[in-house]
Amino acid sequence: MADRLLVGVDGGGTNCRVRVRSLDGTLVGEAQGGTANVFAGLDAALATIVATTERALATGGLGAADLARCHAGLGLAGANVPSVAEAFHARRLPFAAVGLETDAVTACRGAFAGGEGGIAILGTGTAYCVRARGAQTLLGGWGMLVSDQGSGADLGRRALAEALMALDGARPLTPFCEAVLMRFDGSAGAIVEFARTALPRDFGTLAPLVWDHAERGDPAAERLVSTALDDIEPMLRRMLELGSPALALLGGQAPRYRPRLSPDLDALVVEPAGDAMEGGIDLAREVHRMSGGPA
Amino acid sequence: MADRLLVGVDGGGTNCRVRVRSLDGTLVGEAQGGTANVFAGLDAALATIVATTERALATGGLGAADLARCHAGLGLAGANVPSVAEAFHARRLPFAAVGLETDAVTACRGAFAGGEGGIAILGTGTAYCVRARGAQTLLGGWGMLVSDQGSGADLGRRALAEALMALDGARPLTPFCEAVLMRFDGSAGAIVEFARTALPRDFGTLAPLVWDHAERGDPAAERLVSTALDDIEPMLRRMLELGSPALALLGGQAPRYRPRLSPDLDALVVEPAGDAMEGGIDLAREVHRMSGGPA
Repeated sequence: MADRLLVGVDGGGTNCRVRVRSLDGTLVGEAQGGTANVFAGLDAALATIVATTERALATGGLGAADLARCHAGLGLAGANVPSVAEAFHARRLPFAAVGLETDAVTACRGAFAGGEGGIAILGTGTAYCVRARGAQTLLGGWGMLVSDQGSGADLGRRALAEALMALDGARPLTPFCEAVLMRFDGSAGAIVEFARTALPRDFGTLAPLVWDHAERGDPAAERLVSTALDDIEPMLRRMLELGSPALALLGGQAPRYRPRLSPDLDALVVEPAGDAMEGGIDLAREVHRMSGGPA
Repeated sequence: MADRLLVGVDGGGTNCRVRVRSLDGTLVGEAQGGTANVFAGLDAALATIVATTERALATGGLGAADLARCHAGLGLAGANVPSVAEAFHARRLPFAAVGLETDAVTACRGAFAGGEGGIAILGTGTAYCVRARGAQTLLGGWGMLVSDQGSGADLGRRALAEALMALDGARPLTPFCEAVLMRFDGSAGAIVEFARTALPRDFGTLAPLVWDHAERGDPAAERLVSTALDDIEPMLRRMLELGSPALALLGGQAPRYRPRLSPDLDALVVEPAGDAMEGGIDLAREVHRMSGGPA
């Protein structure tokens, strides 16, 4: 049989990205497909993953027949939900072997090239993953209602709360609050109507306003950022306790938080070595190794 | 025509309470009915209000024929939503005349016997109403996602967030956090599952844990209460700015907040003169006066 191939899949709610490498690490191909949201339908997500992998193979001059020599490492949002993992393992995929982890784990594998380290995903939501001392720990990531403090969604939701209090005259109407209100023509009713049906990413569209005004020293925006840091830093410190020798900050909010971190934490921040697809390839290599192939 | 009667209706999501008085203030009767939630169906809510009024008349030896001599003051949650008010005014009710306000306004009328003052409803949600200087102002009350800071729902939701961070080891596992976790057999998954479908009143069931532990000095519970006060006190101060000479605290959380208020605010707190039904009767009396009857 022809040489094995390693496939790394980063399957998120927005899109699915796939990279294929040969065992020696040579890039074979890469492709991007639609949503791989397992909650919207596991079979549709798996079909998207397979189709996107075929297209990645095609960019490297290979075809669907080569799927059978692929070891795949899948990082999927939702893979930590037991019912999802169980349903997944009941499916037959056209790969030689498959490893499944949540996308936070593959992001961590990618950021530290399979070695020890901890990542903070600071995006529309937040989630943390540590791989150290032979263990793997996920922290946070339970959604904006009871978790995800400091995420784009959380900052946006709290921006609305702040603006409503300013509109009532209970807090100073700072330029930040004015900017938030302007998005809704100054109408409390419009804000409440928006919030009633807004998804996390909708709330997240307001986060840049928080950052822009915090950077200009707006006291209301500053307070939101400072509260967020009070929730994020304990998670970073917990990752150090769990043995993480370094921290990688990922996600859209990460560059905004970076200059505000406490100096002792900032000193441990490193640039990610690779992305989540690379982490999927690292997982695929482990699957290959465990199934008897050479490392 | 026989003497007019004054009907005060406190129509909330849980139940509908009706009190009837004669023009000279003599109590005629009182009754309690089911939900008068206008959002679950305006016609059903109005039917409940009429039926409960008939039962209140019956407790005073009167009958359905007496509805036609009733001036009714209705305090309904949701009456400040323009579409609800519009639909309401398109309906024919069997009363001689009807006044409609939100329940916060009738609560304020009741608490200050129709005079000037401000109320803070600190219950499952929060809402504030000031009647002073010839104006009536509603503050807050926009629901737990972007408002209602310090409500039972808000305290309960934040108790879950705190417990999840403690479970991750990112915050100290205080007795308060342990007590919250115990409600869910220590399972983060169970907390997240609960939160996914919980209504405000469901989150509110956790608020007593916050208070009990804050009173024992638990630092995590103390922090939640202190943050809540930082959101509530500016609303109370705003009511003073708007001319409120005194403050009445209503709702299930009110007795817990009272001993923690800043002394200058505490000095202005008064016991409510009457309840929301009495406020409805005050509104009914105003309707009667405006329709030409003696005050």
